Order: sequence, then C-alpha cells, then structure tokens
Amino acid sequence: MSEVSSFSEQPGQDTRPGDPRFFHRSGPFTVEQLAEVSGADFAPAKAGGKSLFRGVAPLHVAGPDEVSFLDNRRYLPLLAETRAGAVILGPAFADKCPEATAAFVSKSPYLAWARVASAFHPAPPSTGFCHPSAVIGKNVALGENVQVGPCAVIGDGAHIGAGSIIGAHASIGQSVEIGERCRIHDHVTVSHARLGERVTLFPGARIGQDGFGFAVGPAGFETVPQLGLVVLEDGVEIGANSTIDRGSMKDTVIGAGTRIDNLVQIGHNARLGRCCIVVSQAGISGSTELGDFVTIAAQAGLIGHIKIGDKARVGAQCGVMSDVEAGADVIGSPAMPFREFFRNVATLRKLSARKTESS
Amino acid sequence: MSEVSSFSEQPGQDTRPGDPRFFHRSGPFTVEQLAEVSGADFAPAKAGGKSLFRGVAPLHVAGPDEVSFLDNRRYLPLLAETRAGAVILGPAFADKCPEATAAFVSKSPYLAWARVASAFHPAPPSTGFCHPSAVIGKNVALGENVQVGPCAVIGDGAHIGAGSIIGAHASIGQSVEIGERCRIHDHVTVSHARLGERVTLFPGARIGQDGFGFAVGPAGFETVPQLGLVVLEDGVEIGANSTIDRGSMKDTVIGAGTRIDNLVQIGHNARLGRCCIVVSQAGISGSTELGDFVTIAAQAGLIGHIKIGDKARVGAQCGVMSDVEAGADVIGSPAMPFREFFRNVATLRKLSARKTESS
Amino acid sequence: MSEVSSFSEQPGQDTRPGDPRFFHRSGPFTVEQLAEVSGADFAPAKAGGKSLFRGVAPLHVAGPDEVSFLDNRRYLPLLAETRAGAVILGPAFADKCPEATAAFVSKSPYLAWARVASAFHPAPPSTGFCHPSAVIGKNVALGENVQVGPCAVIGDGAHIGAGSIIGAHASIGQSVEIGERCRIHDHVTVSHARLGERVTLFPGARIGQDGFGFAVGPAGFETVPQLGLVVLEDGVEIGANSTIDRGSMKDTVIGAGTRIDNLVQIGHNARLGRCCIVVSQAGISGSTELGDFVTIAAQAGLIGHIKIGDKARVGAQCGVMSDVEAGADVIGSPAMPFREFFRNVATLRKLSARKTESS
Repeated sequence: MSEVSSFSEQPGQDTRPGDPRFFHRSGPFTVEQLAEVSGADFAPAKAGGKSLFRGVAPLHVAGPDEVSFLDNRRYLPLLAETRAGAVILGPAFADKCPEATAAFVSKSPYLAWARVASAFHPAPPSTGFCHPSAVIGKNVALGENVQVGPCAVIGDGAHIGAGSIIGAHASIGQSVEIGERCRIHDHVTVSHARLGERVTLFPGARIGQDGFGFAVGPAGFETVPQLGLVVLEDGVEIGANSTIDRGSMKDTVIGAGTRIDNLVQIGHNARLGRCCIVVSQAGISGSTELGDFVTIAAQAGLIGHIKIGDKARVGAQCGVMSDVEAGADVIGSPAMPFREFFRNVATLRKLSARKTESS
Repeated sequence: MSEVSSFSEQPGQDTRPGDPRFFHRSGPFTVEQLAEVSGADFAPAKAGGKSLFRGVAPLHVAGPDEVSFLDNRRYLPLLAETRAGAVILGPAFADKCPEATAAFVSKSPYLAWARVASAFHPAPPSTGFCHPSAVIGKNVALGENVQVGPCAVIGDGAHIGAGSIIGAHASIGQSVEIGERCRIHDHVTVSHARLGERVTLFPGARIGQDGFGFAVGPAGFETVPQLGLVVLEDGVEIGANSTIDRGSMKDTVIGAGTRIDNLVQIGHNARLGRCCIVVSQAGISGSTELGDFVTIAAQAGLIGHIKIGDKARVGAQCGVMSDVEAGADVIGSPAMPFREFFRNVATLRKLSARKTESS
Repeated sequence: MSEVSSFSEQPGQDTRPGDPRFFHRSGPFTVEQLAEVSGADFAPAKAGGKSLFRGVAPLHVAGPDEVSFLDNRRYLPLLAETRAGAVILGPAFADKCPEATAAFVSKSPYLAWARVASAFHPAPPSTGFCHPSAVIGKNVALGENVQVGPCAVIGDGAHIGAGSIIGAHASIGQSVEIGERCRIHDHVTVSHARLGERVTLFPGARIGQDGFGFAVGPAGFETVPQLGLVVLEDGVEIGANSTIDRGSMKDTVIGAGTRIDNLVQIGHNARLGRCCIVVSQAGISGSTELGDFVTIAAQAGLIGHIKIGDKARVGAQCGVMSDVEAGADVIGSPAMPFREFFRNVATLRKLSARKTESS
C-alpha cells in the first residue's frame, strides 16, 4: 500500500505521510536493516508477516509493508487493530502486538522511530547543481557537490563546505564561512558569520545583522558599531524567521547541537551552550549566557547579562530577570521555582474566593 | 475633490486614503450601486446632494463626491461638520446627518463600509503576466491568468490555480498546490502544502517547513522526519512573517476563512477550525486543536495537545495549559476565566496595600 | 597588532572585533582626530605611548595602537592590565589608566565610544552600483550614487534618494518614496510607504502590508481595505523580521529617530513619536499612540487605541490595557507601576509561604 492518495478524491482527509510528490524516499529495507538502523530488538510476527518494508505510517493507516509506532498507553486500542507490518514500541507494550505484526522493541522507542523514519525519508541530498540565476561573488570557495538554488546570492570571499545546500533566494554575505553538509533554506540571510558542519537554517532566518546597540547623543540615538560575528557550531538548527544578532565586541555563539525554533530572538553577545532547546517566540537578550542542555520554553524572555546553568529549564512565558542555577526549573514573570509558582496561583485563588464570599 | 495631495506640499499630514499612486481604484458608482453593494438602506440628502461617488474618506476629510463612515458616538461632532456626500452609519445615528449628506443606514455599518470601500478599492486583479526573471520548474501547471512576479521561483510539479498572483521573490516548493484567486505576496515561502481558493499569504510568511521534532540520542538530538503537509483551506489569510510548520505524521490544517495576523507561530499537527482569529505574536503549539470561531488575542500562547472549543476567546498574553470549553473567555497565565483573573488582580492589590499600611 | 586572527588557528576563540574580512575599516587616526570625533578630553600616556591609532578592541585584547573602553567598575582589573594605547572612560576612572595608556575622558563615555568605533568602522557607503540582475520598474527615480543589490526589485514610480543602498532581494513597491542615505537591507519588503532620510531597515523587515482589518459577514470575514500608508521619518531604524502594517484610513507613523528592534509588530494607524525605543518581540496594536522618548521593553504588548505619554517606560512582558501617563514606569500584566508590581510579588510570596506553614 505505498500508492499515494489523490487529494481530489479524499477531500478533508489527511495526506498520507511521506507523500512521494513532496518527500524524498529510500528503501525498501529488510527487518535486519531496520533493526540495525534503529538499535531496537526485533521480535518477528507470530503469524508470518512481511520481511521487507517500504515506509512508515500511523497505526490506523499503516499496511503490512509499513512500520508504525506506539509510545503512549492511550493508543493501545489502535495497536490492537493495526494492519502495520511492524511497530516500534517500548518493552511494556511488546506483548500487545497483533499476531501479524512484528515488534521492534526499544527502551528509546521515539529515537528508534526517528531513525527508521529517517531511513525511509532521508533529508534530500545536495544535487550539486548551481542554478544559473544564482549570483556568485568573487573569490567564493565552493566545496565539492554544493547545491545553489535559483536567485541565491553569495558574497565575495564566502566559503561553502562540501555537500552543503544553499536554497532559493538565500543571501550569504561577504566572507561568510559555511561548513560541510549545511542546509541553508530559502530566503535565509547570513552575514558576519561562521557556521560549522551540518548547520540547518530554516526559511527566513536572519543571522548576523547588527545588534540593537546605540548611545544617547544630543540629537538622538547614535549607533554603536557591532563588530563581532555570529558563530553557529556543528549541528545547530535555527527555525523559520528567527533572528540572531551578531556580537558587538565579541561573538554571539550558539553551541554545538543546539536547536532553536521559529520566531526566536537572540541578542548580541549571547552565548548558548551545547544541546540547548529554545522554543518558538522565546527571546534571549544581549550578553546572556546559557550552559549546556538548557531548555527555554515558548515565549519565555530572558533579560540581558545573566547566566542560566546547565540543564536548567525555563517555562513558557517565563520572565527571567536574574541568574538561574544549574538544574533549576523556573516559571512565572518574574521567574520562580515551579512549585512556588503553582503554590502562589493556588493561594491567590483561595484568598480571592474568600474575599468574594465575605463581601 | 479626488485630487491627490502632494507629499512634499503637506509635510506631517496624513496621506489621503486610497492614494491612486499606491492603490487600485474603481468607480465612480451611483448611490443605487453602492446601496446594492453594501446592503444598506439609502436615505437621500435633504439638500440635493451628489448622485455619483468617486471614493471614500474619513468624516473630516471627505468631500461631496466621497462616502464616509461613522460607528462611534464619540465622532458625532465630526458628522455634524462633515462635507461628505454620503455617510454609512447605524440606525441610531441616521437622523444626525447634515442636510447635504446622504445616509446609508445599516445594522452592520462596518460590514457595509468594508463593501463600499472594497468597491472603490478592490484588491488589484492578476495581470496575467509572468515576469521573465521568474524561475518556473518542470511540469508546473499554471491556470489561466496567473501573475508571476520578478524573481519568483516555482518548483517542479506545482499547481497554481486560475487568477492567482505569485509575488516577487516568492518561493513555491515542489508539488505545492495553490487554488484559484490566491494572493501570495512577496518573499513568501511555501513548501509541502496544499492551498484552497482565495488564500492570502502576506510578505515573509513561512508555510510548510519542518516542525520542531527530535529525539534525544547518545550524541545529541536526532531529527524526527516531518512527513505531513500544511493544508490551508479556502479564504485563509496568513500575516507577514508568520510561520506554520508542516505536520509530522498528519497535516497541519487551517480551516476555511480563518485569519492569522503577523508573527504568529503555528506548530506541527495543529488544527484550526473555520473562521478563527489569531492575533499577532500569538503561538499555538503542536497538535493543539481549535474549534470554529475561536479568537486567540495577541501574544497568547497555547501549550501542545489541548483542545479549544468553538467560539472560545483567549485573551492577550494568556498562557493556556489545558483545554478550554466552547464559548469560554479566558485570560492570565495560567489561563482562567476573565472574571476570576480580574478578581485576583483586585484581591492582590488590596492585600498588598493593607500589608504596606500595617508594616 | 592589527593583523587578523585565522579562524582555523584559533578554534573556540572569539573573532577579533572589526575583522576586515567582514567589516569596513577607516583610519588610522591621530589622538587629536579621535578627541574631536568623540568630544572627549585627552590625557596623554605618562610613559610615551602611540599617537596614531588603527582600531578598537576590548581591554584584554587591545594592543598599543588600539583604543579600548571602560564604563563599569567591575572591569577595573582589566584596565590595570590592558596593553591598549588609549582607553575611553568616565572621569571617575581617569586616574586608573596604566602608564603606557592614554585616557579619553568623557562624561558620556559610551557615546564617545560609539563615535570612535564608528570612525574606525563606518557603515559601508554606497558603491553606486546597480546590479544587472536587479529588476527596475518604469519611471523609477534613482538619486545620485544609489546602490541596488542583486535580484532587488523596484516597482514602477518609486523614488530612491541619493546615496541610499537597496540590498539583495529587497522588494520596493510601486510609488514608494525612500529618502537620502537610507539602508534597506537584504530581503526587506516595502510597499505603500514613504521613508525619510537615513532610515535603516534590517533584513526581513515588512513595511506597508495590509493591516489586520475585517468585518463579520454572513459567510465569514470580509476584508476592510487598508487605504493608508506607512510613514517612517528621518533616522528611523526597524529590526530584522519586524512588521509594520499600513494604516486603514490614515497613516501608520514612526517618528524621527525611533529605533525598533527585531520581531516587533506595529499595527495599523499606530503613531510613535520621536526617539522611542521598542525592544524585540514587543507588539503595539492598532491606533495606539506613543509620545516622544517612550521605551517599550521586550515582549511587552499594548492594546489598541490607547495613549502612552512622553518618556514613559513599559517593562518587559508588560500587558498595557489603558493609557500610561508621561514619565510613568509600568510593568506586569495588566500593567501597574513598578513599585506596586514588586510589592504584589512580595506580598503573594509571603502569604503563600504562611499558608504552607499553617497547613
């Protein structure tokens, strides 16, 4: 069942995941290949079953040559009725598979799923094609097999590493360094920046523009030149329409493996450690530093010049005005420990109800 | 008085609305035509008056061949002095018109105004011209009378419906389907998406990029392929620089007639019903579902995997962490009913003042 | 020591500020020239010292022919050890300079710094070059020495003032007026707008699209035509990916010298006075008016149709639902005076702790 549903025939229905008109596709794969890719243990179907798989699909949609996924007890009824040829799941659910369904059992089922789905649908590789409408400056160093999209503009002296993809309308500024196997999507602006390997910038990300710096003069504000760069280390991902300003006298640095969602603002001189997560519409003000594995939830805001310790977690819409210790969980505006925040909410609700009764 | 003011001659003054250098213009129209277009009742001016109208203008600016508008008692003094040839207003103000001014009386005066103003200033129709600098892929199906702007890029296999306009620098991805009479403004990115009819995307909107999905691996985060699409149903409008991620295993769907303002984030797998309003800088996290006619005010944030019932209203800056019932009004972070929120504010103010007095 | 460090030789180290591969560079300058530029008093080094300077650098990096800066007592230990040829500092620190370091003493050291750094690193002037890939419409008036970047699109009848720079992929709409010496960065969209002199728009700024206006009709929302413009007065700066909607029946106006950071939303008909500051991710709703010298901190939100008086300061994440008096400081959601907000926070903390003890 790897045929593609026609949109016009199924109005109101979801598109089949991984529709080949939109997505790159690989495979088929044997169970042994998928077991190796995913790191999961393989338990064959009791009642025969396929040994060659062609794609992934949700439990209620998957057919006998597709792999599906379960990680939540809530969906056990769907598991009981699935026609999927195989399912990736945790040890607790391993014996719940229907007889015709093989089990890939993993202590990290979501990770196993990520790997299996990526095997079937790898990110499309570089075509190595440089579109004739692209505008390439002087002394640009393009590595092997670099793809440059229509109307992309690459400034003088830029370096683009082997296997990287520069999307349509992307603008890469003078002297910018981009490492190997990066994916710079359409409409991205990068200037005054150095990128490591495997960096991904989603559409409309703005990297390297001036930080928001000025002095008050007698006739209005006067710009303070912003003379640092942006450094994005290996494996960093920056979401659509997010903005990362370059440093003023040092660099703005995003540590290796950190993932930043859409519409996030990172001010000049900020330093993020390795493997941080910054969710959509959060903002990190200038010169603030994050350790490693820090999580900043959606719409949170961090004032400038503070430090957030390793593995700290900042809740959604939190307003952080001072340092946060390593491992701490904070929320609220101003930020406070999770427990304190919810205790405050409960206290105020009780006091408010009492006042209403007595008045 | 339909001449246009010169900018240089009137420093500091507002431009006359609908300046023909910037806006498409239609007309003139007779009163009968305007009455029909607007659905309003027409009461002719007591003292003669024009029967042919050439444009719209505010009360204090409009001349005898222009139509103006009143919907707020506060502006009655301006009505008394207006030189407008006609005014659209509600029944309560119908007898307040000056003698030389005709009245269009409507129970929905703002709607009547929308229609009259749109008659004089319709959105510019497609020129049907495909600019030679545009880059059109293979097997692209362009309907009748499609306009494609300079430097636009359209990927292989895309479908663009009749009468649609693709703006300058827009990037339409491979296999994307765009219905009839859509307006895709400059610098928009659309990939992995199907759009119905009359969809409008304002500049810099990002539609269809990867959702924010990854698993934690031994050496850092590993991407979970995002294999669904974005579906924008008929009449949807998406504001400037807003971002709508495609689904992971199903589609992200925005229901017919829904209007989304600027800088809004919609996460993967979210589902919005019909005629919802999402105001600027609000964020809706992954897999959250909205019913029909839901209003999300500015800067509100909704956590993932919750449901918001029909006609619910979420206030500005609200932080919604759990389901909201149909018709409910919530505000605050965490969200609570409007009355409870303002009671809490009052309670805390009183307690705080008392503590200060007694200390 | 004006050589440039090689990236590959110094992994993990900051780039030297003002790296000539990325930044325009001027000079060298004599002390007299720098004293004049900065308005600071000059105190020569006790132990000889350079009289010709080649650049700026932080205290711990600067060499004998570079100028550095101190404005915070915290960094006095760095001053004691600096090798900088000169340091800009306030009167209180003037006698703390090492013997080989000259002092530029100013009551406004940050302003003096802005001017000295700008002398060494002026914003790059227009090349006067119009890239052949740019698409220029009919009757476009380009002033003297205008630079137009690759793939820029300029609509019919637009005016671009002398010395202005239009970046790569910028889209300037029909009849738009841009004054002299403006800097329109890459990927900017401007339509329905008039810009004064020295206006700077950072990448991805969206100026002049439709405001969010519609009436409720029987079959859904109906658009109210947005017939005003955006007016950006002299010296205005708009950050990356910020959005400024045009007016509905009058103009949206940003007053001279006002600076707007990244990802800010300004609704239709809003009026900002002179020299306001609006920090990243803040939002100002339609028809709201700000006086002069107003500061709106990050992620604050202002409801529509209110007035904010001169020199008022709105705190980060503040939710402003009513007028704010001139000179007031407000914070919280809903907005309240700073003192009241922090008193409320303290009160609730105490009450909450007491309830926990007694329960």
